[in-house]
Amino acid sequence: MSDHFPALNSAIRQHADTLLAELQEFLRIPSISTLPAHRPDAERALEFLAHSLTEIGFEHIQRIVPPQNPNGLPLLYADWMHAPGAPTVLFYGHYDVQPPDPLNEWISPPFEPTVREGSIYARGAADDKGQVYAQIKAMQVLMRTHGKLPVNVKFLIEGEEEVGGESVDAYVRANHGPLACDCVVVSDTAMFAPGVPSLDVGLRGMVYAEIEMQGAERDLHSGLYGGVAPNPFMALVRVLGGLKSPEGAILIPGFYDRVQAPSPEEQAAWKRLPFNEDEYRINEVRALALTGEAGYSVFERTWSRPTLDVHGMPGGFTGPGSKTVIPARASAKVSMRLVPQQQPSEIARLFEAAVKKLTPHGFHSQVKIHSLADPVLVDPGNRFIRAAVKSLARVFGAEPVFLRSGGSIPVVALFASELKVPIVMMGFGLPDDGLHSPNEKFALSSYYGGIGAVAQFLLELADGH
Amino acid sequence: MSDHFPALNSAIRQHADTLLAELQEFLRIPSISTLPAHRPDAERALEFLAHSLTEIGFEHIQRIVPPQNPNGLPLLYADWMHAPGAPTVLFYGHYDVQPPDPLNEWISPPFEPTVREGSIYARGAADDKGQVYAQIKAMQVLMRTHGKLPVNVKFLIEGEEEVGGESVDAYVRANHGPLACDCVVVSDTAMFAPGVPSLDVGLRGMVYAEIEMQGAERDLHSGLYGGVAPNPFMALVRVLGGLKSPEGAILIPGFYDRVQAPSPEEQAAWKRLPFNEDEYRINEVRALALTGEAGYSVFERTWSRPTLDVHGMPGGFTGPGSKTVIPARASAKVSMRLVPQQQPSEIARLFEAAVKKLTPHGFHSQVKIHSLADPVLVDPGNRFIRAAVKSLARVFGAEPVFLRSGGSIPVVALFASELKVPIVMMGFGLPDDGLHSPNEKFALSSYYGGIGAVAQFLLELADGH
Repeated sequence: MSDHFPALNSAIRQHADTLLAELQEFLRIPSISTLPAHRPDAERALEFLAHSLTEIGFEHIQRIVPPQNPNGLPLLYADWMHAPGAPTVLFYGHYDVQPPDPLNEWISPPFEPTVREGSIYARGAADDKGQVYAQIKAMQVLMRTHGKLPVNVKFLIEGEEEVGGESVDAYVRANHGPLACDCVVVSDTAMFAPGVPSLDVGLRGMVYAEIEMQGAERDLHSGLYGGVAPNPFMALVRVLGGLKSPEGAILIPGFYDRVQAPSPEEQAAWKRLPFNEDEYRINEVRALALTGEAGYSVFERTWSRPTLDVHGMPGGFTGPGSKTVIPARASAKVSMRLVPQQQPSEIARLFEAAVKKLTPHGFHSQVKIHSLADPVLVDPGNRFIRAAVKSLARVFGAEPVFLRSGGSIPVVALFASELKVPIVMMGFGLPDDGLHSPNEKFALSSYYGGIGAVAQFLLELADGH
Repeated sequence: MSDHFPALNSAIRQHADTLLAELQEFLRIPSISTLPAHRPDAERALEFLAHSLTEIGFEHIQRIVPPQNPNGLPLLYADWMHAPGAPTVLFYGHYDVQPPDPLNEWISPPFEPTVREGSIYARGAADDKGQVYAQIKAMQVLMRTHGKLPVNVKFLIEGEEEVGGESVDAYVRANHGPLACDCVVVSDTAMFAPGVPSLDVGLRGMVYAEIEMQGAERDLHSGLYGGVAPNPFMALVRVLGGLKSPEGAILIPGFYDRVQAPSPEEQAAWKRLPFNEDEYRINEVRALALTGEAGYSVFERTWSRPTLDVHGMPGGFTGPGSKTVIPARASAKVSMRLVPQQQPSEIARLFEAAVKKLTPHGFHSQVKIHSLADPVLVDPGNRFIRAAVKSLARVFGAEPVFLRSGGSIPVVALFASELKVPIVMMGFGLPDDGLHSPNEKFALSSYYGGIGAVAQFLLELADGH
């Protein structure tokens, strides 16, 4: 096997300025999918990528609007299929971004990408424009150094990741044929730390629910009726207090039945990760204390243990000052993060039953399910993961670690269950990139390293074939 | 003693249409004190009343902005002091109203007063514009029938009752001289039922507090940090669950120490009130069940027992749909209604100590006190109450009952403690008037009856003198 890396590396160095300038041009487009006013910008971001892929030599470029979601933002598909006999890799990413609010907290404007101290600052820099663009630029570098790609490549890039991904869901379910591949590469995750290349092998799933609690039929004055009027906030206090113990255990009957502990090897690997709990608490979580289940490490509590959290409790009076209303209705937005092998629809049923049982006499409660996502666990014993390990080690000069992520990426579960191929979650973000926050950034070392690692990964795959 | 009532009654009947049209004009002014945009409307409402009082012959009309509250809504003062040797009665009311939201639940618009089925529907109809206007119109009727008032009369009408009453508080404390009187009449309460004239002899006091709970320093993503991040909503669930038992007992140490039970006579009178608990639950509270302390009647639970209620829990995500944020901060707006002889400042201290003690490890809580109000208990054995009883019996043709109200009218406690004169709470609202709710109404029988009762009350006072 010949060593292609020096040639790759020198091509990246030689074109470093252009690669950065092109990324800046992409980041300048405010492709915010949550705001209808930015729809034309989102379409421009798609066109920008389509143009980049065409230039590199990709074909069958399509702007796809699935019939199930006619008003959605389009998907971008493209392929290069001129490596007969070699495997086919499907790359996934998204061109849409979160809104940039609060604007006044940005040091440089969110859509004027600015390089400071080795990172590029812009909304979408790490999530996910910088990462999907690194995938594309890896193809360009390979074309330059080799005149062709070492394997067959497909791209499927969506514009609704930040708003629920309805289009990609509909399209993938209905188009196994066009998407046929040997593995899927997703670059939408982070490395464990700077200089520690990482492969994500697990994601938590999710049930996001809303408990709607009704007391009286109409809002009542707490002076006239306080003492007899059912208060839906107090009912929610009873229900939420009954769903989770003060010690952090979730009290829903059957909730933990299918929870699978990580393998001893995985647990041992987590213990070797460089980690200082106090530093994490003080600098990253920034809290007086970490909470959660006793007897489980931080990695277990955030990666392999399920959770239950309250995100908001709409209802009643929330303005400044005081109003003495006993509201007719109040709600609690509650999410549960799930781990292998918990099943979202089963957990939703158990949750609903537990809420019903905990609802105090005199109240009517209803559970609305906002979304479900399967947990994901990747078997790291396949040649795609092995090729990823090799390429990351080569590019970053350090052995990659296997991580899980506490978050949910529904599209990963979708690819796994629909296409039934291995998923490689090779992400280049860093923990302090500030996704969804002001001053989002992407390290230049992540951008160039990502380009190199993706290119090297395809070369390793072809060699191993 | 000559019977003046037939003359009064016929004057009211004769001018019924004008009396109603003028009230409608007053109700049309959206004098919402909680919304700065409606400040000019509130000022217009004051001018409207000033003009009415001038027409009747009142003097020394003043628009008062106390120096302690320079940006507050002005008080209106007026007097008629031409009955030498007769007692002086100070009438209190307020010209400001609550916001009308939710607008879409109003059958007729809140500021287009509409008569339906014997009631006038508008925001402020019963609370308190219809009642304060009945007081003023009583003076007009007396002037028409007698050419003068039988006693000396002062009016003090405020525009900040719905926003804490800062101006009236400051003014009353500093102006005992100008407000010197023999009794205060407040018409801001309700009758027990249609046809049951009522005198209110007790009000609950209040502590309105906000618990601010802080977890991490910044909002965190529930995927990445769920399992270790302190969730301030869950901390509030623990605190609120610890402040009150599921059975309705308030668990704050020392909370009940000064609670005084009503006298055996008062309790016996309450037992004689016409009352059907099921009808009250179904038609008035409109709930599946009444809540509260076992072993206490509805009257005790709403009039002579203290309460603790949650009015809103601001923080986190409260929009439609889902957002996976573990917020840094969340709050709970909590009020406690107090009964004689609980002391608001002492209860506030006990509450704060209990919250601190219940705050889970890893969180920082802070209690902000929005307002305090003393409970009030009136001694019914004075000539002003006797005159009120006689006038109500005459006008409504039924013996009045002595009630308490579960609400808090801080200005009543203020008058009692500062002016040290008897308070007559002679209100004409009905339990289903919908104060602070959509479709607020005031029965026409209450309006005309109120005019008659106030006028007759002054005549009785002069006779009894």
